[in-house]
Amino acid sequence: MVPVRWISFTTDYGLTDGFVAACHGVIARLAPEVRVIDVTHLVPPGDVTRGAAVLAQTVPSLPPSVHLAVVDPGVGTARRAIVVEAADGSLFVGPDNGLLVPAAEALGGIRRAVHLTNREWFAPHVSHTFHGRDVFAPVAARLALGADPTTAGATVPDVVRPVPPHVEHLPDGVRAEVLTADRFGNLQLATTTAPPGGPGTAVSVNGQPARTGATFGDVGPDELVVLTDSAGHLAVAVNGGSAADRLGSVPGDRITIIRYDSRSTP
Amino acid sequence: MVPVRWISFTTDYGLTDGFVAACHGVIARLAPEVRVIDVTHLVPPGDVTRGAAVLAQTVPSLPPSVHLAVVDPGVGTARRAIVVEAADGSLFVGPDNGLLVPAAEALGGIRRAVHLTNREWFAPHVSHTFHGRDVFAPVAARLALGADPTTAGATVPDVVRPVPPHVEHLPDGVRAEVLTADRFGNLQLATTTAPPGGPGTAVSVNGQPARTGATFGDVGPDELVVLTDSAGHLAVAVNGGSAADRLGSVPGDRITIIRYDSRSTP
Amino acid sequence: MVPVRWISFTTDYGLTDGFVAACHGVIARLAPEVRVIDVTHLVPPGDVTRGAAVLAQTVPSLPPSVHLAVVDPGVGTARRAIVVEAADGSLFVGPDNGLLVPAAEALGGIRRAVHLTNREWFAPHVSHTFHGRDVFAPVAARLALGADPTTAGATVPDVVRPVPPHVEHLPDGVRAEVLTADRFGNLQLATTTAPPGGPGTAVSVNGQPARTGATFGDVGPDELVVLTDSAGHLAVAVNGGSAADRLGSVPGDRITIIRYDSRSTP
Repeated sequence: MVPVRWISFTTDYGLTDGFVAACHGVIARLAPEVRVIDVTHLVPPGDVTRGAAVLAQTVPSLPPSVHLAVVDPGVGTARRAIVVEAADGSLFVGPDNGLLVPAAEALGGIRRAVHLTNREWFAPHVSHTFHGRDVFAPVAARLALGADPTTAGATVPDVVRPVPPHVEHLPDGVRAEVLTADRFGNLQLATTTAPPGGPGTAVSVNGQPARTGATFGDVGPDELVVLTDSAGHLAVAVNGGSAADRLGSVPGDRITIIRYDSRSTP
Repeated sequence: MVPVRWISFTTDYGLTDGFVAACHGVIARLAPEVRVIDVTHLVPPGDVTRGAAVLAQTVPSLPPSVHLAVVDPGVGTARRAIVVEAADGSLFVGPDNGLLVPAAEALGGIRRAVHLTNREWFAPHVSHTFHGRDVFAPVAARLALGADPTTAGATVPDVVRPVPPHVEHLPDGVRAEVLTADRFGNLQLATTTAPPGGPGTAVSVNGQPARTGATFGDVGPDELVVLTDSAGHLAVAVNGGSAADRLGSVPGDRITIIRYDSRSTP
Repeated sequence: MVPVRWISFTTDYGLTDGFVAACHGVIARLAPEVRVIDVTHLVPPGDVTRGAAVLAQTVPSLPPSVHLAVVDPGVGTARRAIVVEAADGSLFVGPDNGLLVPAAEALGGIRRAVHLTNREWFAPHVSHTFHGRDVFAPVAARLALGADPTTAGATVPDVVRPVPPHVEHLPDGVRAEVLTADRFGNLQLATTTAPPGGPGTAVSVNGQPARTGATFGDVGPDELVVLTDSAGHLAVAVNGGSAADRLGSVPGDRITIIRYDSRSTP
């Protein structure tokens, strides 16, 4: 395989402990020339869905990389450790729990997957509770150096797929699950459907008045706006405020957006 | 222009999403040899004043860099995107909302400013809501590679200036706005005035007894001390505690410091 | 001394201010080829014990490095600034308050220590409150470049030692202080004793029923498990939950673990 200069790194390890640094250290020892781009380490503990969404939306902006991702509530149990190769040749390393799939699909889909079983790729001693340090980081470093993933284990016919989020098209709008709420309280929905109507259309969002727009400032201060976000998803925001607070919504909740003049329809 | 090896990076993007990493990725693709120093990404959302203060106090410690800063509540509206060149040749990239000005002044003042309009400097597709990724990061990367900012747009005669914070000199002291409260609860005031009196002078801080000193340990545990902080600003601290909690003060509030023997004066 | 490519960096500076970046900048100016691995900057303010624990558990995973660590409630007072050399040649830089000792012991013990007094190693102007930027970072950068620490000051016969945490061996178990609680709520105890009994043994943890295991998934969801963690310490966890919340325990508290069939003994 072609070596790459970059490893991206996504976890739920948090930033208060030394877990992230330990993995950086393992990579530095094995592949000192490789540089690491930290995507986030603040995925809520064990929240595979959230980790998958962040990774999928970030990888299109990254340089050719090995993508190391560890949100792994089943660490040390029978769940598999895998490498996934995307259609564009990008490699993903992590647990086989759905975490890597949306990102691989964002890069053209899964070309093949390998079940990591060759212990020569791992740390000499593998702990039961920290496979980021002992399994996944060493594998990512070796892949970045150009090692062939098919020597790490057997190719597998399929991987664990995440449950698709709820998306329901309505006569004059859409009802969709909240995929993420970002730091600003912008609610990203699990659909790339365009906002209903053209720009400036009056809509209702879970019964509250809003307007479609291209950016936050297209509505007045503290008003709700429905737009296409920077990842191409339908999203709800408040200009200068938090849509998550306004609507009381969190990831997993459903949001209904319909054209205002038809809001009595559904 | 002379290429630089470093880009500093300051935002209000937070660390829970992939926004910071997406910008790192854009820089890595365009300028793979350049290294990024993250100043902070935890500026309170939309708080231009706070972002400007952190950046201004940090740049004197940084190597020759392009300084990329994005606290941009007006993203996608008519606010301008600019490059600012400081007297020492340092370049700043960000929105024209006052964010870059104090830092440029800390490096000798503004030599010139360019309104970014040449779309060849941007990403091929510019979103309406993520100019950090699509406008500012690509511009920062090109500047770090040595591109001439005057080819990015027209020079402009002036930029948006921040409102100067309140500072009022009193007969025996000073009344000044809190510029920042750091993680330790140290309150940094918007003035570089020295503490009133010599070291060890008894003073009152918003009516509470305190003493001037050079460092935290110059007063007893849990006592208030007035000192010059590491950025050269007048500051109020509690030895082993939080002045912000003790005084109930936050950035924007005013603090009055007067010599104790004259505290009935003002 | 042999130059190293890496500096590890541990502080209680937090991530909201520019303090960490200022130190990165100082290192970049003095040693531009050196790369920094951030261990954590979220040590609770002034918590030397916690900082020491995180550093000690992370250094075994790091490449050959100068380890820069600053948790320094006594900054600017008479406390000494030191360089500690571990038995494996690794160098540690920081305040002489016990912070560096457990990590040096994790790398084979302290070979020698130097009291930093040579001001040529520091910044031209040393502030009273930010020795991370003005003393410790410049020293770390010079050490990484290969400077001889014995030119930085006099060798000292001993350094400040941390108070050993409470560990008490019981007839059928152990009572030990909580050293750290990580982001997942796993409680790490201050002992490397193995869990009492073999795998699957019924035990009580502060009176609550638990079972020994190798990993979280060895007990049912929401059940308590006692295991050896990835740093080799005895630890208490909840499968899919937080042991810190379940037991209401924080670092410094004591946890008693005894075999269930003997729980009436102690």
